[in-house]
Amino acid sequence: MHSKENNPIGVFDSGIGGLSVVRAFMARLPSENIIYFGDTARVPYGVKSVDTIVLYARQIAEFLLQQNVKLLIIACNTMAAVARKEIAELSPVPVLDVIDAGARTAAAVTRTKRVGVIGTPATINSGAYNRAIHKFDPEIRITSQTCPLFVPLVEEGWLEHPATRLIAEEYLKPLLMNNLDTLVLGCTHYPLLKPLLQGIVGDEILLVDSAEAMADQTAAMLDHQGLGNRQSSPPEYRYHVTDVPYRFQSIGEAFLGRALGDVQMVKW
Amino acid sequence: MHSKENNPIGVFDSGIGGLSVVRAFMARLPSENIIYFGDTARVPYGVKSVDTIVLYARQIAEFLLQQNVKLLIIACNTMAAVARKEIAELSPVPVLDVIDAGARTAAAVTRTKRVGVIGTPATINSGAYNRAIHKFDPEIRITSQTCPLFVPLVEEGWLEHPATRLIAEEYLKPLLMNNLDTLVLGCTHYPLLKPLLQGIVGDEILLVDSAEAMADQTAAMLDHQGLGNRQSSPPEYRYHVTDVPYRFQSIGEAFLGRALGDVQMVKW
Repeated sequence: MHSKENNPIGVFDSGIGGLSVVRAFMARLPSENIIYFGDTARVPYGVKSVDTIVLYARQIAEFLLQQNVKLLIIACNTMAAVARKEIAELSPVPVLDVIDAGARTAAAVTRTKRVGVIGTPATINSGAYNRAIHKFDPEIRITSQTCPLFVPLVEEGWLEHPATRLIAEEYLKPLLMNNLDTLVLGCTHYPLLKPLLQGIVGDEILLVDSAEAMADQTAAMLDHQGLGNRQSSPPEYRYHVTDVPYRFQSIGEAFLGRALGDVQMVKW
Repeated sequence: MHSKENNPIGVFDSGIGGLSVVRAFMARLPSENIIYFGDTARVPYGVKSVDTIVLYARQIAEFLLQQNVKLLIIACNTMAAVARKEIAELSPVPVLDVIDAGARTAAAVTRTKRVGVIGTPATINSGAYNRAIHKFDPEIRITSQTCPLFVPLVEEGWLEHPATRLIAEEYLKPLLMNNLDTLVLGCTHYPLLKPLLQGIVGDEILLVDSAEAMADQTAAMLDHQGLGNRQSSPPEYRYHVTDVPYRFQSIGEAFLGRALGDVQMVKW
């Protein structure tokens, strides 16, 4: 029988994007077992209503809790934005999320106290980043922008395409009028656009990748609570998805930075 | 009690795009009652696996059959491409679909027998348009192209945006090397891009909008089988959706060309 410390960390997302969080975990927490859940049949969540997102998020959290996870990581900004409270209420284990992690980092690194946030419509319209950043520093001025075409562009693999550049320039233009020094990538798909976005905003602006922030925060928390895995055997990685869609393998591996191993289908 | 002729026509799609078919029906068949089903919580289907699309398509068809429809119209190219057979097997009423309708029109109008088809990955990869067009004329040479970014661009409302033009030019370039005289818009979202696409392909190429083709074919079929509604009362229109997502109202009304009336939520 496993002790609690050896139980896996449950990481979940609306689709494949959360694998960028798993990748950061593999690098930062190499002894931890990880179970990933991606709701690839019902992705994208970013344009759905709050009620539907909450319903789906509860269903996924319950699935992972049945697998005896020691910790739940909401790797999806949209679910973190609108369903964090509901997930925390049903979970007997700690719940961490990418919005809190990204907000914490943004508040720590900004010097001018002018921060921009980009994300899906559901994430931005929820105001969750504003609340989370202001929890750490109420004086920060925040401007935000929805970028609904970034997810399909990333899934099409057009990471450096002229059309992607044109779209990114249009989305970022209003943000850049606010003298930002920090821009939070508020969606797990966006880190793949980092080189293109950095080119548009210039080197003066720091891009906050919430996957890195999430791994740092989780490492600190496991250490603090004595919950880190002390087994010496190699960690196990399991992936659950609700569909194996078009280009799943190639896109998934672009996010994960390595081959996808044990992928299991869940039929809902 | 209603007689069969007065029963509604059931029209369904993975999301909102099928409302372009409803719009064509309202114009072409003004006495018919219509029930629309849009699976807005699980849209888009075009990048999902065949198994998942078939599962969802059966679920929707069964829902509409319970509402006593006299006819099922598969307004979604993706479902028509991969689940037509399964739907026809479970349905006691006739089933018509947009691919058959579009293929019939394309075969009738092409003079050079060189036809192009654009659609989602699931639609194009299924080969359903090739089979359907060759059923009407096996000599037609068909070239096809997947356009996965068109649906999100239409839903973003960027119908004439320079980025949309750039993307469309890239998608259409290989097709235009084949001396087409006819191009089938194999997705219910694409008719909203018609002015932009016509500008790119030039006036020599006829664009086949499967919504119009679908309405013509349905009118002929109802007439032939004596199934047309003979009631003089104004027709009823009902809309069932699985979510009321971001911009549902504005996008829905762009497709329908009029205000959306009675919209009911179905929680699955």
